[in-house]
Amino acid sequence: MKKTFLKNKKNVQFLIIGLGLIGGSIAKRLSKNGFKVLALDSSKSTLNHAKNTEVIKGSANKIDFTKKLFVIVALPPKTILRGFNKYLDLFQKADFITDCTSVKESLLSQIKKNNLQKKFLLSHPIAGSEKSGFLNSNENLFEDKVSIVLKHKGISKNALQISQEFWSELGSNTFNLDSKLHDRIFSLTSHIPHIVAFSLISLLSKRKDLDYKKFMGGGFKDFTRIAASDPKMWENIFTLNKKNILKDINRLQEELNTFKKLLLKDEQRKIESYLKKIKKTKESLNK
Amino acid sequence: MKKTFLKNKKNVQFLIIGLGLIGGSIAKRLSKNGFKVLALDSSKSTLNHAKNTEVIKGSANKIDFTKKLFVIVALPPKTILRGFNKYLDLFQKADFITDCTSVKESLLSQIKKNNLQKKFLLSHPIAGSEKSGFLNSNENLFEDKVSIVLKHKGISKNALQISQEFWSELGSNTFNLDSKLHDRIFSLTSHIPHIVAFSLISLLSKRKDLDYKKFMGGGFKDFTRIAASDPKMWENIFTLNKKNILKDINRLQEELNTFKKLLLKDEQRKIESYLKKIKKTKESLNK
Repeated sequence: MKKTFLKNKKNVQFLIIGLGLIGGSIAKRLSKNGFKVLALDSSKSTLNHAKNTEVIKGSANKIDFTKKLFVIVALPPKTILRGFNKYLDLFQKADFITDCTSVKESLLSQIKKNNLQKKFLLSHPIAGSEKSGFLNSNENLFEDKVSIVLKHKGISKNALQISQEFWSELGSNTFNLDSKLHDRIFSLTSHIPHIVAFSLISLLSKRKDLDYKKFMGGGFKDFTRIAASDPKMWENIFTLNKKNILKDINRLQEELNTFKKLLLKDEQRKIESYLKKIKKTKESLNK
Repeated sequence: MKKTFLKNKKNVQFLIIGLGLIGGSIAKRLSKNGFKVLALDSSKSTLNHAKNTEVIKGSANKIDFTKKLFVIVALPPKTILRGFNKYLDLFQKADFITDCTSVKESLLSQIKKNNLQKKFLLSHPIAGSEKSGFLNSNENLFEDKVSIVLKHKGISKNALQISQEFWSELGSNTFNLDSKLHDRIFSLTSHIPHIVAFSLISLLSKRKDLDYKKFMGGGFKDFTRIAASDPKMWENIFTLNKKNILKDINRLQEELNTFKKLLLKDEQRKIESYLKKIKKTKESLNK
C-alpha cells in the first residue's frame, strides 16, 4: 500500500508498551524495517535484552518530541485499563495510539472518557499463540494474518490511515469491525475454544489411573494446544468479555444436550446426517 | 525388533479388508516393504486403482492357502460387526486377524462368540486424521505413532508376536491395554474432542450475520480441524461407545458449570489460579 505517515522513517518513532509475544514481535519487525523503536516493560532484564539485541533504541526518556510519536500498547487488557492514568500523559502527547487485545468494549469506554477517541484506535491482530513472552516473539508473527481495526465514532481519518500503514508494515491485512460485534464474534471463535480446551485438560488431570500421555493422537494435541496459553491474559479476557462468553457457554451446553439426546435414543441416521452437515460447514470454512 | 513370522516375506501374504485411509496406508507400506498384499473393498474403482499402482496384487481369489494369511480389517466399527458373518470363513482360514478401530468392547464380544479369540487380536493405531479415503492414504501414516494392542484372555502367544512384528513393520510402537479401559480412555482423549469440535461448528453455522471465515485464528482452526472427519465412521464410534461418552459429556458440562460460576461471581484470582494449574498439566503432557 502507498505510505504517507510511515514514508519518511526518520520523522517517526514507535513506543511499544509491553514487550511480550505481541509487543516483542512488533518491535522486532519495526526495527528490522528501519524504524526507531522505544519500549516500556515492567521487566528490566527484558528491556536490557531488547536493547542489547538492537530491537529497541531505549525507553521513554529517548522520545524525541520534535518527531511523530506512535504508541502501541501491547499489554493484557486489564493491565491497560488499570494503568490507563499512568500512561495518560504519554497518550496525550502521542500522535497515534493503538492496542492489540482480544476484548474491546471496556477499553473503548475508557478512551472516550479521556477524550482520546480521535487518535486512539483499537486493533486486534489475529496472531495469538499459546506461547508467550519476548523470547517467543518473532518479526514474522503478523505476516499474512488479519488484523481487525475497530473504527469508532470520532476517530480521525489520519488515525485510520496510520493504522492501515502500520499493520501493512508488519505484513498484515486489515479488516474493519465494530467493538460490540468484535467481542461477540471472538467470544465464539476464540474465547470459547480456550475455555473448552482448559476444561478438557482439567478433566484429564482428575484421572489418576494411568499416564494418559501415551494415548493422545494429533487431534487431542491440536485441540488442547491452547490450554497452555497465558493464564493472566486469559483471566483478563474471560472476565472482560463475560457477558458474551456466558451466553456462548450456554449455547454450547445446549448443543451438547441435543447430541446427548440423539445418542441416548440411538438415532444413528440423525447423528450421521448431523455430522455430514457439520463436515460440509467446516469444509466451506476452510476454503 | 527381531522378526520371526515376518522374516521370510515369501511365506506370508496380507489381506486388507477396506482400502480407506487406514487400510490404504497399511497396504502401501507393506507392499513397499516387499510383502504380497491383497485387498477387498466395496469400491471396484479403488481396487483397480490400488492394483494399477501396484499397491496390491489382487483380491481374495489370489489367496495362496499354502502360505500364511494375515487379515487386517480396516473398516468402520459397525461395518465390521454387521459384516462379521460374511468374513467368518476367511477369518477361520486366516493365521492372524486384527482390526484398526477406535472402539473395542462390542467387537471383542463378537470375536469370543465365534471362538476366534486365539488369533483375532484387536488393535488401534493412534494415527487417524480428519482426512479419509484411499487417496489420502500414505505409507508413512504409522511412522513413530503408538498402536494400542488389546491383549485379551485366550489370545495365543503367536498372535501377540505377529501383532508386534506387524506394527513394527509399519513403523509404529505398540502399547498394551485392556478393551474396557481402552474405550474409557479414548472416550475422553478422542471421542469427546470430536463431539465438541462438531458442536462448535454447528453453533457457528447458526450465525448468519456475517462471514466468520475471516475471524479464525490458528487456535480455532486447529481446534475444529477434526470437525471435517468422516461422518459414518464417527456415528459408528459415538453410538458404540455411548456409555462412556455420555458420562464424559456430563463431566465436561459440569466442568463448564464450575467455570461459569467463577465467571458469574467475578472470581478473578480463582480463575487465574485454575488456568495456571491447567497450563502446568498441559505442559507436563507435552513432555
